[in-house]
Amino acid sequence: MSAPTTFHGWVCHGKDAPMKWEEMKIRAEDDYCVDMDVTDCGLCGTDIHTMDANWVSPRYPLCGHEIASICTRVDSKVQNVKVGDRIGVGTQSGSCHRAECPACSTGNENLCPIQLFFTYNSVWPNGDEAYGGYADKWRGDCRFVFKIPDILSNEIACIVFCAGVATYAPLKRHNVNADSVVGVMGLGGLGHYGILWAKAMGAKVFTMSHNDRKHDVALELGADDYIGTNAAEHLTKYTGKFSHILCTGISPDFKWKTYTPLFKPNGVFINVNLPEWNFPEISPMLLVASQVNICGSAIGSPIEIEDMLQFAAKTVLKPYLPTYPMKEAPQAVADFNAGKPRFRFVLKDLLFVCVLSKYKAGGLSPI
Amino acid sequence: MSAPTTFHGWVCHGKDAPMKWEEMKIRAEDDYCVDMDVTDCGLCGTDIHTMDANWVSPRYPLCGHEIASICTRVDSKVQNVKVGDRIGVGTQSGSCHRAECPACSTGNENLCPIQLFFTYNSVWPNGDEAYGGYADKWRGDCRFVFKIPDILSNEIACIVFCAGVATYAPLKRHNVNADSVVGVMGLGGLGHYGILWAKAMGAKVFTMSHNDRKHDVALELGADDYIGTNAAEHLTKYTGKFSHILCTGISPDFKWKTYTPLFKPNGVFINVNLPEWNFPEISPMLLVASQVNICGSAIGSPIEIEDMLQFAAKTVLKPYLPTYPMKEAPQAVADFNAGKPRFRFVLKDLLFVCVLSKYKAGGLSPI
Repeated sequence: MSAPTTFHGWVCHGKDAPMKWEEMKIRAEDDYCVDMDVTDCGLCGTDIHTMDANWVSPRYPLCGHEIASICTRVDSKVQNVKVGDRIGVGTQSGSCHRAECPACSTGNENLCPIQLFFTYNSVWPNGDEAYGGYADKWRGDCRFVFKIPDILSNEIACIVFCAGVATYAPLKRHNVNADSVVGVMGLGGLGHYGILWAKAMGAKVFTMSHNDRKHDVALELGADDYIGTNAAEHLTKYTGKFSHILCTGISPDFKWKTYTPLFKPNGVFINVNLPEWNFPEISPMLLVASQVNICGSAIGSPIEIEDMLQFAAKTVLKPYLPTYPMKEAPQAVADFNAGKPRFRFVLKDLLFVCVLSKYKAGGLSPI
Repeated sequence: MSAPTTFHGWVCHGKDAPMKWEEMKIRAEDDYCVDMDVTDCGLCGTDIHTMDANWVSPRYPLCGHEIASICTRVDSKVQNVKVGDRIGVGTQSGSCHRAECPACSTGNENLCPIQLFFTYNSVWPNGDEAYGGYADKWRGDCRFVFKIPDILSNEIACIVFCAGVATYAPLKRHNVNADSVVGVMGLGGLGHYGILWAKAMGAKVFTMSHNDRKHDVALELGADDYIGTNAAEHLTKYTGKFSHILCTGISPDFKWKTYTPLFKPNGVFINVNLPEWNFPEISPMLLVASQVNICGSAIGSPIEIEDMLQFAAKTVLKPYLPTYPMKEAPQAVADFNAGKPRFRFVLKDLLFVCVLSKYKAGGLSPI
């Protein structure tokens, strides 16, 4: 199959500009490239923040980063996936890979301090732009592309490459297990994965939200209990309760002294949330006296992604994923902005769903 | 030996008030009480902050909390020490011990959220005041009193019960070992123990200080290198270097973004310092992208103190401890306030040093 030089995708040319389906130049190949036809792409809060230029000035045009696909072509040094494989890529699509890099040399490429590349809103080392996956095709580095286990559909798999690993990796890294009691703050796209993973790891899970309308769905997702955080007195009875709190959403009035008493000794507060406000000052006395570990987690490393895929396959992950046809991406974005996701939207390229159905006869698992 | 009802000690009756040697009422006994004749008491920065009412309004009169002594009497339920033992007590001298306490029930009494008692500036459950160890006697709860290993003198042992365990416990808890690279921020009483412990644990150790006059003594203490923190460019070459940073001193202009890049993946920033200013806000993006664990550590639990005593004995801890006779406590405090400690002052009750010399013939180790 000859290598394509262009692709079609939804692009955003500026803050508040309407999204457009356009033909774009695909990045040039190198020895590590994988080509894929996109079947599914998640719609992540990061996409919206980036399109809206909430964090830094983005590189327009741009589009999504939670891609599930079918592999259509590989370059000479690609060994981990082959043509016909169902494969995926998430937020990160490159790092420096240098022997002297403290992150890359230790399997922590997600923390590479030298050269991080992302699936969109980024520039490849060759100078080409990376545009992302609200598209029909994507080309990128095999070292950040993963084969999807047979039991996971592309629809489910696409989102684990970002929201999935962003919540799985820190829970695993911080040893969540059957002895853990995990509070999940916020019940949106990330929080919903937090509940699913922590339950699958055997933990007792409490959903914490200021929006009491989420009470029922939290329990439906498997949470053992729901804590309304809109009144401090709801929290005080959980003093000394949690081994971990996974923060996927906070209010601007968040106070450390409200949350640190909720931990068991040596508890871990893990932030995976990127609001537009900062975590507040903390007094050294509170930091010392609480002995709570405060940390964040940056998506996940390739090793953690592989581990997550196996765990998701083994535990039969069942997220809540309303779908939209790829051609309705602008409507999906509008609905996202209206707060409608319960809990994560997937853009499906229906043409490729048909194409892929042909592969089934060849033994591929359903997508 | 009949139980004493009073003791003599140096007391402080208010901020800026002169210290006085006075007779005071000793707390009433209960089944867990241990009486001790104080031989050595460390002079800790906390003593000064407390006398100066820098943190909260203190319970005057008060005096020190790093006590080494000889046991003179025990009550009915005391099993861990006996009359004639060389024993010590540190900052904490009580907790709730309830089965339902998430801290006490798991061997983390230092984090008891229900009922913490301290060696001075505190009230015992019976309502009596706790006055501390710039004194000739002290009486307290055996569950926070420890037998000093034979190889450690009382002079060395007294300070490990506070400054020692405050630095040992977090380094041990966060797995400092021969593969670790530890930055020790600040070189005062705590920082000097940080260097000694981390080196004894096999780590590579870098002292970080804004005061370049400490360069030579840092190396003399065993640090592998010295980093002047008074210029940002001195730090940048240590990007990705540290597995741990033990913070024993920071400036009011401390910035997270200066220090988070210095860590290896999943590094740990441990604060054991109690300045009068807060740690600043941290952006969620920096918390996420750095994946650094930020924590504090509250002295240490009884289990950690026992562990530390054995480690100190095994590794032959050699701190720098200028001594003052107990009768010169006011001068020691004045010298402390003048920034003279290199690195920790010990008040010695010379009378008891003589008394204890008699015990030597009976097989007691030297004090």
